[in-house]
Amino acid sequence: MGDAASSGLLEGLHEISSVGRDRHRGGYSRHLWDPAEFELREWFASRAEKIGLEVETDRNGNIWAWWGPPGPDALVIGSHLDSVPGGGAFDGPLGVESAFEAVRRIKATGILPRRPLAVMAFAEEEGSRFGVACLGSQLLTGAISPEYVRSLRDENGVSFADAGRRVGFDTDRIGRDDMALSRIGLFIELHVEQGRGLINLGSPTAIASRILAHGRWTLTFRGQGNHAGATLMSDRDDPMVSAARAVLEVQQAALDFPGSRATVGRMTALPGGANVIPSSVTMSLDARASSDEETRALVETIAGRVRATEFVENSWSPEVHFDRALAETVTRAIGDVPVLPSGAGHDAGVLAAVVPTAMIFVRNPDGVSHAPGEYAELDDCLAGIQALEDVVRSLV
Amino acid sequence: MGDAASSGLLEGLHEISSVGRDRHRGGYSRHLWDPAEFELREWFASRAEKIGLEVETDRNGNIWAWWGPPGPDALVIGSHLDSVPGGGAFDGPLGVESAFEAVRRIKATGILPRRPLAVMAFAEEEGSRFGVACLGSQLLTGAISPEYVRSLRDENGVSFADAGRRVGFDTDRIGRDDMALSRIGLFIELHVEQGRGLINLGSPTAIASRILAHGRWTLTFRGQGNHAGATLMSDRDDPMVSAARAVLEVQQAALDFPGSRATVGRMTALPGGANVIPSSVTMSLDARASSDEETRALVETIAGRVRATEFVENSWSPEVHFDRALAETVTRAIGDVPVLPSGAGHDAGVLAAVVPTAMIFVRNPDGVSHAPGEYAELDDCLAGIQALEDVVRSLV
Repeated sequence: MGDAASSGLLEGLHEISSVGRDRHRGGYSRHLWDPAEFELREWFASRAEKIGLEVETDRNGNIWAWWGPPGPDALVIGSHLDSVPGGGAFDGPLGVESAFEAVRRIKATGILPRRPLAVMAFAEEEGSRFGVACLGSQLLTGAISPEYVRSLRDENGVSFADAGRRVGFDTDRIGRDDMALSRIGLFIELHVEQGRGLINLGSPTAIASRILAHGRWTLTFRGQGNHAGATLMSDRDDPMVSAARAVLEVQQAALDFPGSRATVGRMTALPGGANVIPSSVTMSLDARASSDEETRALVETIAGRVRATEFVENSWSPEVHFDRALAETVTRAIGDVPVLPSGAGHDAGVLAAVVPTAMIFVRNPDGVSHAPGEYAELDDCLAGIQALEDVVRSLV
Repeated sequence: MGDAASSGLLEGLHEISSVGRDRHRGGYSRHLWDPAEFELREWFASRAEKIGLEVETDRNGNIWAWWGPPGPDALVIGSHLDSVPGGGAFDGPLGVESAFEAVRRIKATGILPRRPLAVMAFAEEEGSRFGVACLGSQLLTGAISPEYVRSLRDENGVSFADAGRRVGFDTDRIGRDDMALSRIGLFIELHVEQGRGLINLGSPTAIASRILAHGRWTLTFRGQGNHAGATLMSDRDDPMVSAARAVLEVQQAALDFPGSRATVGRMTALPGGANVIPSSVTMSLDARASSDEETRALVETIAGRVRATEFVENSWSPEVHFDRALAETVTRAIGDVPVLPSGAGHDAGVLAAVVPTAMIFVRNPDGVSHAPGEYAELDDCLAGIQALEDVVRSLV
């Protein structure tokens, strides 16, 4: 947690600064339906109550805080509260807190909005528990099938359906929610920038043009598990060696497609004993490029170069272009700020398929994100809140 | 579990064939003080009782079953009951069960031994819970410091001291046990062969000449954790790439030292999110060669070629030569069988530092060990029991 949050000027981030700290990884681990995530949901409700907003949870576990009665053509602003394992303090919560603060300021002036407005926090944006990013927004918009989601398992083997049951959440009712969707007129998400894109541009904020196509795959390499001491090197069929070669091929393939990114963030050897040649090694692959075609070509190149026993697609998000008219409205409200593509996926990218959507980025001073050192300067966060306030004023 | 055990002729292996099955990895996971391991301890006690042996647990958690009153210059035979994660049915239990069966047969003839005899099962031979192999025998002989052992942690971060407390085991009393040591005159361990060493030699059994020098190390690679989508390939400091290169260097170094073996059996990325460039990657290294000097040279070569942030030694076992006089006695009793070196470490290797020690190997038909498919033919297991019976008869 940086100074910006602990100074008290970003009151909400300060209030949740001790929730879900990860002592092992550093930073925060806040995952769907774990105690920390429930604490964040309570914080959301109390923060909303303090400024007179009405809280509801939809059928997909997303939470809404309404200014006035929920209604059609609402302006919805927000982000998410969950984190990657060992993530930073800003990715997600900055957007939710900035939305609350913008609404608080506008309400304080006595303005009555001409349209409904809601602050929102989407569930499981990072996909850290069940492996699928933007789970709450994908369910809401019908981008993902409820049957598939119920069958997803976390790393302890607990299915989404069972996990919901344990916390009293009715997973029979998940899926596209036309009633909720019919209320959303526009969606705007403020988010900390996650790369080095704003560092040399002299502006604390930017507007998003588009989101790179991206997806996640799981690669499995099988071999012959055996004794690490009794098995001669020449008698081995060691999948760890194939997996290591694959990591280097992934790296090389991404370099061969300029502008693309490919990452192995997780690797698990079975059985996992120090004195055992693994019988199988599983790794994650995250791949992104500027177009759907290029991302597909990158992944096909990787698949052709590595010798994986299995190569399974877990998720696929096509390239997203944000609404041009809304981007012009935002620009008129906040001034002529830089326009950046996003390498990261966002709930806004999912919402863009069904309603006009925009994103505002807050400068990241060193491009660190999804890590404990993620940071944004207080002045830049305040500029982000000001920008969001200006946009909301111009739209309500 | 193969036919040999389920046929009922290897009664003990059959009795424990459902204990500690690992549904995730296959095979068995039987680790110190987990419910399965306690069940094996109970089985040991009831097996001993059935043939009239007196059971005691020593200060280091090793269990003994005495034929007659415990006394000096005893012949001690046995092995261990714990397994690697997802290990086979034979590694360890075959030696314990064969010892019980040999004693049962000899007792059944009415012979009264001229010296004390004990069947023994050592604790945590595989080191699967606390990372140090032959833990029970190393504590018994004083090869490892009690303070160090109490501070060891399992993968959930639980220390040996706390783990003992939870199961009512007094870890204040662990350490070299001169009283127990003074009773051991000779130690003989029967064990399934773990490589392909006996496959083409036309004999179901062999005698061990020596154990390769071996050790375990932990390598840590640190980089900059970051967002998998927002971080350009050129801006990355990705420790997964360094770790992958290291796996290939480990493989190459072992090939550069003929006869040596080096294995990476475990790799963990932190934070471990699919959409996160890791901030650090940790891997295990198991290295073995025919002499202490060559093993040290192998590991130094690896350390020189990889760029690990940390390179920590977890355990070191020098080359062991078994007692020549005892090997001659064993050969006289069982006939002229092949003599093999062992690439695997054993409690017998630890005991060899303090008492005359020998090992008998039972043929492994395909060289698979530390894996669910580990196997030994029933006839070969029976030949092993016969050999052990013959040796015990000649020594008691």
